[in-house]
Amino acid sequence: MKTTLDCLPCFLKQALQTARLTTVAAGVHEEIMKQAIAFLGRVNFSLSPPENAVALYEMIAAISACNDPFIELKKESNRFALGLKPQVRRQIDESTDPLYAALLFSMAGNIIDYGSLHQFDMEQTIRQALALEPVINDFPAFTADLAHARRVLYLADNSGELVFDSLVIEKLGKDVTFVVKERPIINDALREDAQSCGLETICTVISNGTGCPGTPLAACSDEFQRLFRAADLIISKGQGNFETLSEVQAPLYFLLTVKCPVVRDHIEQISGRTADIGRTVLLKGIHHEWK
Amino acid sequence: MKTTLDCLPCFLKQALQTARLTTVAAGVHEEIMKQAIAFLGRVNFSLSPPENAVALYEMIAAISACNDPFIELKKESNRFALGLKPQVRRQIDESTDPLYAALLFSMAGNIIDYGSLHQFDMEQTIRQALALEPVINDFPAFTADLAHARRVLYLADNSGELVFDSLVIEKLGKDVTFVVKERPIINDALREDAQSCGLETICTVISNGTGCPGTPLAACSDEFQRLFRAADLIISKGQGNFETLSEVQAPLYFLLTVKCPVVRDHIEQISGRTADIGRTVLLKGIHHEWK
Repeated sequence: MKTTLDCLPCFLKQALQTARLTTVAAGVHEEIMKQAIAFLGRVNFSLSPPENAVALYEMIAAISACNDPFIELKKESNRFALGLKPQVRRQIDESTDPLYAALLFSMAGNIIDYGSLHQFDMEQTIRQALALEPVINDFPAFTADLAHARRVLYLADNSGELVFDSLVIEKLGKDVTFVVKERPIINDALREDAQSCGLETICTVISNGTGCPGTPLAACSDEFQRLFRAADLIISKGQGNFETLSEVQAPLYFLLTVKCPVVRDHIEQISGRTADIGRTVLLKGIHHEWK
Repeated sequence: MKTTLDCLPCFLKQALQTARLTTVAAGVHEEIMKQAIAFLGRVNFSLSPPENAVALYEMIAAISACNDPFIELKKESNRFALGLKPQVRRQIDESTDPLYAALLFSMAGNIIDYGSLHQFDMEQTIRQALALEPVINDFPAFTADLAHARRVLYLADNSGELVFDSLVIEKLGKDVTFVVKERPIINDALREDAQSCGLETICTVISNGTGCPGTPLAACSDEFQRLFRAADLIISKGQGNFETLSEVQAPLYFLLTVKCPVVRDHIEQISGRTADIGRTVLLKGIHHEWK
């Protein structure tokens, strides 16, 4: 999926929000916004939004001398989701289809913007998760493909929601490799998040080799690329992974909450199906062919 | 009120929305966004957002060769509001305090973004108008000041809501001068809107001499400045007029719907009172002194 003109105001908004996380110094905010404006002039519209975003966040890190502005928010969201885990697991185990229930919670976990997290909203979202059917729902195809799959790749998105991803992995009953990011980027999960959320005790955890808020294949590590090509089933969480992989030929299932009009329009364009902003989606990849 | 860093993404978003109103040609959209990025580098943070916006909209008009991108939306909103007028007038006349009721409708009219107007939303807003108390409500001071006022200036905001402004003017029972913009700017009301909404039959209509989506005093016509200084009471509708007049010494009452965090924060800063986004406000000017 390519970057559009609609992404430009959003890049600028992200830059300002991130600048404010790094420091309270107004001079730094001004310098970051000045350089963010310059960045807008260099955006490559043949790349996906997450691929363009890398340079933006690198610039912010360099100016602010803050390598990981989201680190405290990430820790807080991990702690918070871990606190909810027993209650969510109980709801999953009590449901008629535990795997489906786990996927619903995992998609609902993706709805939350941990940057502006209110405990109340999160708990409400969790309470409603089982009632919220995905507006695009390829779960029947997913279970059919899963039955044949030996090697499952699970591409993580944000910190916090990892806890719900771990409950999905428990229900998959497969050999799963869980993929995080190599370097800090926004609130994307890193190895330390996977560790503190207990993922390493139930599956293999690797990084994709990048500090991109998505999965830009050509920039990923050789190890990741090998596993990606060998996978029988790939679960891709969140918008960033979708934006970078939506047109890739692979056995992909995209699980995400639709958060912006550009992604909404792209889903409609490639799938012919409509998913309004705020809704969850379990979408089979368009170039998905069972081996 | 001064332009802030938060205004930059908003300027860019406005540029794209307006570009799309002028033409479907993607090349024009790209050129407008390129020039909008350049504009961001020239923003003067000692001016208000509406004052900065003038150059942005002039650039869009020049590139697109479209002087008034909102003309059809303005006509549509006038027609739509005129259709609601009999029903709104009846509700006003049947209320216990018709002037207050008219002001509530006028503030509710300001809530509507005519760029994305759905008839249903508008009707719902109108239905709810009488139930929505302004979150900041200086109506008692307003009526006290109004009792002494001879010369009332009414600064218009958008097309469409003019119809509701006319119902306020009928209830004021004063010599009112109604002030529109001289040149097209966004969906701000012009003389032709005032005429088609019947304002000229109930009061004097003048322009402030500008094509700014607000009231930048120094740039206004001599005639307007004279009337502004001589006015006993000035009713200022909408965010744009508030943004340009919030710190001016004059007998001002601001009637608006709060639509952005920058205006929300400024209201809190100057008045010590809180008005969340989406709420209506009837706020006595901070430098208001009765003559």
